[in-house]
Amino acid sequence: MITIALDVMSGDLGAGECIPAALLSLRANPQLQLQLVGDESTIRAALAQQVGRDSSLSQRIAVIHASEIITMDDSPREAIRRKKQSSMRLAIDQVHAGSAQAAVSAGNTGALTAIAHFVLKCLPEVERAPIMSAVPNVKGMTHVLDLGANVRATALQLEQFAIMGAIVARDVHGIARPRVGLLNIGEEEQKGNDLVQEAHARLLAWREGARRETFDYYGFVEGHDIFGGEVDVVVTDGFTGNVALKTMEGLAGLISSRLRQEFTADLPSKLAALMARPVLKRVSQSLDPRRYNGAVMVGLRQVVVKSHGGADRVAMSEAIRIASTAVSSQLVRHVESAFRS
Amino acid sequence: MITIALDVMSGDLGAGECIPAALLSLRANPQLQLQLVGDESTIRAALAQQVGRDSSLSQRIAVIHASEIITMDDSPREAIRRKKQSSMRLAIDQVHAGSAQAAVSAGNTGALTAIAHFVLKCLPEVERAPIMSAVPNVKGMTHVLDLGANVRATALQLEQFAIMGAIVARDVHGIARPRVGLLNIGEEEQKGNDLVQEAHARLLAWREGARRETFDYYGFVEGHDIFGGEVDVVVTDGFTGNVALKTMEGLAGLISSRLRQEFTADLPSKLAALMARPVLKRVSQSLDPRRYNGAVMVGLRQVVVKSHGGADRVAMSEAIRIASTAVSSQLVRHVESAFRS
Repeated sequence: MITIALDVMSGDLGAGECIPAALLSLRANPQLQLQLVGDESTIRAALAQQVGRDSSLSQRIAVIHASEIITMDDSPREAIRRKKQSSMRLAIDQVHAGSAQAAVSAGNTGALTAIAHFVLKCLPEVERAPIMSAVPNVKGMTHVLDLGANVRATALQLEQFAIMGAIVARDVHGIARPRVGLLNIGEEEQKGNDLVQEAHARLLAWREGARRETFDYYGFVEGHDIFGGEVDVVVTDGFTGNVALKTMEGLAGLISSRLRQEFTADLPSKLAALMARPVLKRVSQSLDPRRYNGAVMVGLRQVVVKSHGGADRVAMSEAIRIASTAVSSQLVRHVESAFRS
Repeated sequence: MITIALDVMSGDLGAGECIPAALLSLRANPQLQLQLVGDESTIRAALAQQVGRDSSLSQRIAVIHASEIITMDDSPREAIRRKKQSSMRLAIDQVHAGSAQAAVSAGNTGALTAIAHFVLKCLPEVERAPIMSAVPNVKGMTHVLDLGANVRATALQLEQFAIMGAIVARDVHGIARPRVGLLNIGEEEQKGNDLVQEAHARLLAWREGARRETFDYYGFVEGHDIFGGEVDVVVTDGFTGNVALKTMEGLAGLISSRLRQEFTADLPSKLAALMARPVLKRVSQSLDPRRYNGAVMVGLRQVVVKSHGGADRVAMSEAIRIASTAVSSQLVRHVESAFRS
């Protein structure tokens, strides 16, 4: 059995989506137990309505009351100091206490990063835990890190992100020997700032070293290469990675809204929309960000998964699945041994 | 009359698109003269074929022979030191000598930035010249800088980018009082790294100061806000800006390729494609990057415009139009006086 603590008060949609997501996950995976962390009366009422007398589900659910919620406005420092009874903090506390093996939250990224570092701590040798998630590419998925857990990075940290990213790609996503690229503003050797140049030198040295079997260092890649399928993992600092991720979301939203606008512009367009609907649906399903939800916070002593703030039940259950795979594949042990050897 | 020096050997498509672009521009603007800089025999042959005896065009064309080309592999340093007879260098030399008022090139961004800084120099008080271009948003266009002229930035430089970006938005794109946002990884006051925090403090002070009429400082924005239409100008360092731009290009390419793939998947899809074609064409035209081509390198003593490397004749002629508007609106004089006062 795998036990996951779920911060059900988190995200833009809160318990209204988190509890259905929990039930979807429990139905999909009989080896899963969930701790639902949040306002007890809200959770009990939702469970009474949605689970009823289904003991196969209710036996695998525990409710942990949390009297506070960390909001998007809370600073990481305030979240650590003042909100010790928040659903996010208590979910992570369960993991620290050993009663759960992973925590999942859709809340404030800065607060989650800070609390996860503060309570769970990084593995020995690991300086900072980045967050890593998948985006679609022409062939399948590209895994990008850091997506914003840290507002800056050193060259050593970027090297560590590359190693950890490769291990997540292998353990959680089943890519045997991931190809890893370092995000830069040109693919030529001399391009970029000191940070990426130094990280590149480290990764070239790593490629020549003894542990090179873990992954294949591809060299520099550019923003568009995230979607090209030539690399499986793209490494960058948390500032750049977060901007890239949100830029993607913004552009995808703009293109969707333009399509909607033009397909409803007049009668011929509306008729075309009827004909084109199944095709457009296939396109939007193949790019659906919900299929890619669940960012692993890698490098900690235990597993923490960040869900997108706007996640609905389908997206949130994907984040829970990612957390459970990270646990069952022994991700943390593999990261630890990569840095120990 | 406005005279522009055009590096016709530049870009992925070279003289084959640059010369038709020149002719499109000359036909569209009778007040324009062009210096075509590149391999003389190539240019003369193309002109003989495409212009013929049309003296209204040929009178406004000068040909300047360049024996070298700067490639994408040339480092900025090599480009400055060793390629003094390149089409890019000679185009900028024309501007420096005063025989042209602006230079346009689709070549190597790093080399163009380096040569433009080296030959033309920044205006007094301006530390670095960023490059700025437009991307579509839900309402119209957002102007983003720096898109990669500089691989790092200081807080003072980000403040200067904001001021210069606002002046370009006003002078070249006709926005009376631009709203300017600073790109960050959260909109909350405490978010981000030291660089953006310090730049934010400077811009808040600026907003309270005497020259606040130039633009309206909006505060922090995130990657998705580039497309939201709430701000006219988005300011960031050249590394982040370049990654964001290329991420957009990559995602737009992925979405286009998925649409093409699904609309040709089977017979019903192909029929739907026939019906949907006019609608999809309107969407792709409204987002067509060629309409947004032409990145102004602002802060120099003269006007330099960078075209996208993959620009075709339509896109390249838009870059020439941007350069000519920058000259006619006296952009450089306005930037100079903003920093002098």
